Amino acid sequence: MALDPTIKRVTIVGTGLLGGSVGLALRLTGFKGTIVGTGSRPATLGTALAHGCVHEVQESPVQAVKGSDLVVIAAPVGKIPGILGQLSTCLESHTVVTDVGSTKFSIVTAAEAEGLEGRFVGAHPMAGSESTGPLAARADLFKGKPVILTPAGRTEPGALQKVESFWTSFGMQVFHMSPQEHDRLVAVISHLPHAVAVMLVQLAEQNGALPVASTGFADTTRLAMGDSELWADIFLDNKAAVVEALAQWAALSDRFVHVLKSNDRAALTRLLIEAQTLRTGWRDRPKGSA
Amino acid sequence: MALDPTIKRVTIVGTGLLGGSVGLALRLTGFKGTIVGTGSRPATLGTALAHGCVHEVQESPVQAVKGSDLVVIAAPVGKIPGILGQLSTCLESHTVVTDVGSTKFSIVTAAEAEGLEGRFVGAHPMAGSESTGPLAARADLFKGKPVILTPAGRTEPGALQKVESFWTSFGMQVFHMSPQEHDRLVAVISHLPHAVAVMLVQLAEQNGALPVASTGFADTTRLAMGDSELWADIFLDNKAAVVEALAQWAALSDRFVHVLKSNDRAALTRLLIEAQTLRTGWRDRPKGSA
Repeated sequence: MALDPTIKRVTIVGTGLLGGSVGLALRLTGFKGTIVGTGSRPATLGTALAHGCVHEVQESPVQAVKGSDLVVIAAPVGKIPGILGQLSTCLESHTVVTDVGSTKFSIVTAAEAEGLEGRFVGAHPMAGSESTGPLAARADLFKGKPVILTPAGRTEPGALQKVESFWTSFGMQVFHMSPQEHDRLVAVISHLPHAVAVMLVQLAEQNGALPVASTGFADTTRLAMGDSELWADIFLDNKAAVVEALAQWAALSDRFVHVLKSNDRAALTRLLIEAQTLRTGWRDRPKGSA
Repeated sequence: MALDPTIKRVTIVGTGLLGGSVGLALRLTGFKGTIVGTGSRPATLGTALAHGCVHEVQESPVQAVKGSDLVVIAAPVGKIPGILGQLSTCLESHTVVTDVGSTKFSIVTAAEAEGLEGRFVGAHPMAGSESTGPLAARADLFKGKPVILTPAGRTEPGALQKVESFWTSFGMQVFHMSPQEHDRLVAVISHLPHAVAVMLVQLAEQNGALPVASTGFADTTRLAMGDSELWADIFLDNKAAVVEALAQWAALSDRFVHVLKSNDRAALTRLLIEAQTLRTGWRDRPKGSA
């Protein structure tokens, strides 16, 4: 889908890896308008500007959102509610807002509390990296990846349409769901894998096994290199769903142990083939295209 | 370390991904001798020959090991004891033997039972891929990776020296340990990560979350695409150590849940930083060189 033509000025709040990549991806679509960057760290803004992520920077968010058709909040989860509060007092009436937060219930709730529910469309582009900062930003970070949109009951259809056109213009595959459903699914395919990576590293260390670890360990634990403060916020914000996912996990682990202990080669092979088939099918699934 | 100059004829039993890569890696060292391939599937042998993994092939293992200075068994774990039995009746007195099996206790025990303990040096090159077959073989598969050697008390020093020179000639970093210690460490950094990948796929499927999964999930679950029959053998062969690793895992998981439930941001951040630091340090560790 092409970007809604009424979007001519886009403000990115937070120009790190994700915000910077939003700017680069938008430029790659041939966007003819203006991309403004703002954020709490002047050095990051300067780097984002120099790296071509944005056309101009404004240290003041109030100045940065002036005349904007779309504001993209690309800040850590823990900071998004505060930014929504700040924006609620200075947005022009036509401006729509989206974000990139890894949790959605608390953010959508904050948007509603600030009276932004009509124009705010929560988004979670399922793309990232263990790298941080605008120098790690990439124009193709979002291409072919899923983006989850969590419009609320009172979100204006026009706002939803604009935000959807924005993310799909990067070649993303759009999924709509409630914030609660988002948080439940993402606990399983993003937050739990992160916790698993962390625990595998802990276990390797406590067994003195790191020196002999190799490529399989590297892949499985790459997520553990993610930003610790950011992830502490995500885990605490989505605590209930992560705890539930870990409980389901414990049941699967018990079953695995049972199959091993009972020497049930047939059951073990079935289980491995099932996972292999699912994982290979997922790898080969059709993906979104620009 | 350079390859021992008395090794002039090398036989590879099993010319799939690992055996094929052994052949390519050996050629890359400038080896002037002859590499012979043998194995149970003529088509695989033909492909390995065409792909340049070996100089010649022999369907009969007895023929293939004639005049060999070194035999490398690159078969699935479940088949190695049978191959050792077969070799024990036809090896020339000077021939030394090594393998690539993912478990070591049962294999070393089998070598001893066949009277091969003097000339057999169990090896586990920590390198692999979810791909299989000689077409996926790569000359650089082993470079910079660890290889664990598990010589027994009665292994001849000359045999150990030859086998060690062989694996180090590929640029591998050698670790010596007992078969039991190998199996314990590898349960933690290879077998458990595989089980974890399988369980993450199962959990995503049972929650209907696969459609929105993305790169983090892809990395964490890549191992689940590995060969199911091969991995069933590995898990059952190393059952005790894998069950012990899963028990340790359950304790870590309980601790993670406790930290979340008690909203202990400081403890959570500490835990995440510790894993991040260990994982980053491991990535940046000095690696073996050719």
